Amino acid sequence: MLAQGISEKIKKEFIAIVSPENYEDTQTSRLVYSYDATPNYQALPEAIISPRNTREVSEVLKICNEHGIPVVPRGSGTNLCGGTCPVEGGVVLLFKHMNKILEIDEANLTITVQPGVLTVQIIQAVEARGLFYPPDPGSMKISTIGGNINENAGGLRGLKYGVTRDYVIGLEAVLPNGDIVRTGGKLAKDVAGYDFTRLFVGSEGTLCVVTEAILKLLPLPETKKTGLALFSDLESAAKAVSKIIANKIIPATLEFLDNATIRVVEDYVKIGLPVNAEAVLLIEQDGQPEIVDRDMAKIIDICLQENAFSVEVAKTEQEAEALRTARRTALSALARLAPTTILEDATVPRSEIARMVKSITEIAGKYNLKICTFGHAGDGNLHPTCPTDVRNHEEMERVEKAFEEIFQRAIELGGTITGEHGVGIMKAPYLEMKLGKEGVAAMRAVKAALDPNNIMNPGKIFAGDSRKRVVVS
Amino acid sequence: MLAQGISEKIKKEFIAIVSPENYEDTQTSRLVYSYDATPNYQALPEAIISPRNTREVSEVLKICNEHGIPVVPRGSGTNLCGGTCPVEGGVVLLFKHMNKILEIDEANLTITVQPGVLTVQIIQAVEARGLFYPPDPGSMKISTIGGNINENAGGLRGLKYGVTRDYVIGLEAVLPNGDIVRTGGKLAKDVAGYDFTRLFVGSEGTLCVVTEAILKLLPLPETKKTGLALFSDLESAAKAVSKIIANKIIPATLEFLDNATIRVVEDYVKIGLPVNAEAVLLIEQDGQPEIVDRDMAKIIDICLQENAFSVEVAKTEQEAEALRTARRTALSALARLAPTTILEDATVPRSEIARMVKSITEIAGKYNLKICTFGHAGDGNLHPTCPTDVRNHEEMERVEKAFEEIFQRAIELGGTITGEHGVGIMKAPYLEMKLGKEGVAAMRAVKAALDPNNIMNPGKIFAGDSRKRVVVS
Repeated sequence: MLAQGISEKIKKEFIAIVSPENYEDTQTSRLVYSYDATPNYQALPEAIISPRNTREVSEVLKICNEHGIPVVPRGSGTNLCGGTCPVEGGVVLLFKHMNKILEIDEANLTITVQPGVLTVQIIQAVEARGLFYPPDPGSMKISTIGGNINENAGGLRGLKYGVTRDYVIGLEAVLPNGDIVRTGGKLAKDVAGYDFTRLFVGSEGTLCVVTEAILKLLPLPETKKTGLALFSDLESAAKAVSKIIANKIIPATLEFLDNATIRVVEDYVKIGLPVNAEAVLLIEQDGQPEIVDRDMAKIIDICLQENAFSVEVAKTEQEAEALRTARRTALSALARLAPTTILEDATVPRSEIARMVKSITEIAGKYNLKICTFGHAGDGNLHPTCPTDVRNHEEMERVEKAFEEIFQRAIELGGTITGEHGVGIMKAPYLEMKLGKEGVAAMRAVKAALDPNNIMNPGKIFAGDSRKRVVVS
Repeated sequence: MLAQGISEKIKKEFIAIVSPENYEDTQTSRLVYSYDATPNYQALPEAIISPRNTREVSEVLKICNEHGIPVVPRGSGTNLCGGTCPVEGGVVLLFKHMNKILEIDEANLTITVQPGVLTVQIIQAVEARGLFYPPDPGSMKISTIGGNINENAGGLRGLKYGVTRDYVIGLEAVLPNGDIVRTGGKLAKDVAGYDFTRLFVGSEGTLCVVTEAILKLLPLPETKKTGLALFSDLESAAKAVSKIIANKIIPATLEFLDNATIRVVEDYVKIGLPVNAEAVLLIEQDGQPEIVDRDMAKIIDICLQENAFSVEVAKTEQEAEALRTARRTALSALARLAPTTILEDATVPRSEIARMVKSITEIAGKYNLKICTFGHAGDGNLHPTCPTDVRNHEEMERVEKAFEEIFQRAIELGGTITGEHGVGIMKAPYLEMKLGKEGVAAMRAVKAALDPNNIMNPGKIFAGDSRKRVVVS
């Protein structure tokens, strides 16, 4: 079905549902929601609608479905795959009214939330009760849980605790036809039909609009320790990572920064990072004090065995925070280097990290690009990052080619084109590398089954053609 | 598409693929695979095929798809929902040749297996290396991992460790059209497209044939302790369960047996169980020794505070094994009571266990039935079990009505019609209670998208009509 656009008549219908103040179509508003955190993608929506409840979402979707109007659900737009850029126009849905924590259930260890709640609000609310919501994407201070669910956001604690998908146990969602469905519940076990909860998590707004979620909580770990290990070569750091796991220790966090990233971060935050280190591991363990102490002692031993030239454990929370800051500011620091920052998240099995980082360095050299690499070493989720300038078309072509080779290499090593950022527009041309024609065809079939008029975030996940990174305006 | 049956020509094609010794259609073989562990369902397949590899599975499926021949993938047939009963005839697929552990990868903490491997073989193989595969369904000594994946099997450790779904991180599967697809990988993070790994887990053989799986492993907990708490009333036991969790302790196992079950089990195994207790909690905690000791001490305290009249912790592994046996033999013990045993798995939020057990008792009284209840208290997954006799049609009608009320009550309490057994034929008429018309319609759409000719385990999950428990022959 071709988009018919929003006529005056349809506009009136939308306004009748959400009331005038929740319907915006000024040029300014449209510009505000024409892009997200992903460099180099921009397209104007026709309108921005802020429904106040699930029923309104359902009514809006029915109209969009009838008229073939694209719907792009949007949280804070922090995604890095162009996931909320309205490439085919239509309606951007905002959740500023659906932003409540509905319930914290301490007996069942769950929290029930609306999509517009900020991730950090969830984390703070549950920690105040001695509970724990582990997923901590880099953007958690500004991202919404709705966005996290749609993108299956990861974070620094993924190694030990998993990602958003592992904590969503129930959803209320509106299907493109306006049907309101409920999946799962406050249940550790539920096999009534297909696992639509997990199908919807990470579906990037292409199957439904999430209007409520039940999240699983854990008891808050009693304590946490943070350490930093410095290595003069990359292989040693990678070996240390493998050896820690092989010794049956699963740290809460095991983050990696290469020399290029260390230099950039130190230049930015000036906290005394060792700019001579070729590789840095940021290590955190949490849990009961005696176990944390024991694990950290073993980890230090292993790092030293693998030729770390320095290993230190933060003695105070302040020191620990400084170390975490080093990792958390990596993206901001790198973003200062050039007008455009391309941050990727090719992911490989943990055992292949050294090979992958080496390949990234070689590919950067081949295309004469600066690529800094940092990321989640424990789960093989790397963030090769290229400071560049979209206005330099010749360089952008090299960037494009380099990342295509990086994705190809990740696949060769048993990895994937995206560990936690999502496919969106940006990775759509590469999806077949990972899934094969057959896999993509099967996913398209599911998409068509649930969204026959292709109104839900069209142009995402599945490549319309072979376009790579392009400017859409 | 209507099934055309297996003509001589098609039979020859099958034999050309798998060789004569892997194609059976004698009356005896057909009878052997006409039923599974579920009472009261039987239907003859037309043939039993044992492919030797993925390519053969693909070739067989292409033929079945072309001719509309039903395909029922079958492990050991231990499921309790009629999931592997070939109600529409066709081909039963066996995996006796695809029964290898392909790899244990200690660096990435994964095991790669073929579908025909027994669950217990996986558990033993990884524990020999100090690793841990937590899902432990009651049938694990004879069930296959392929069956576990198709049914998303649970087990006694679900509370702390989750279920099969939480450990499957990659699949090779054959779609009905013969396409071979690979999902996920040895990856903690992967968001390349929809989460087909989890969509396929628990899809009960209705979407694809699983031909290989990558399972996530954990380090083996260093130690384990087992305890038994006896209560003179049900509410106190349920309160103890809630209070343990509210105290931020997540035991590895928290199992519940009601008085009726205790009596039956003691009569069977004679290990000195207290037949005067109204409720028994079997508690296990695993982990590092100091933590296990601390947790068990707290748990004992809580049970005593909630009026347990006896709490004992096993002093030896022998004692512990005796306690675990009490729980593990519950089904066998109950099965001795009457010719037919109907074991259900209505599941509620943990906080609703006392209410649910009370309702079950009331419903049993209303329909003048004996219903014993045991199950996984920690995750609200109860197994109300009715000893009956399928030849007694009048009683079977009351059984049917009682369980319908039990499911209804579970839903009212925020629960589900099945926590770990699956929908199969048995729960198909009740699926709408949980998902609503809209939810069932959406799942049917996905089924039709991936299996347009409805060859994959037809008659399962979705009710063809309003039939409840029936004899199909």
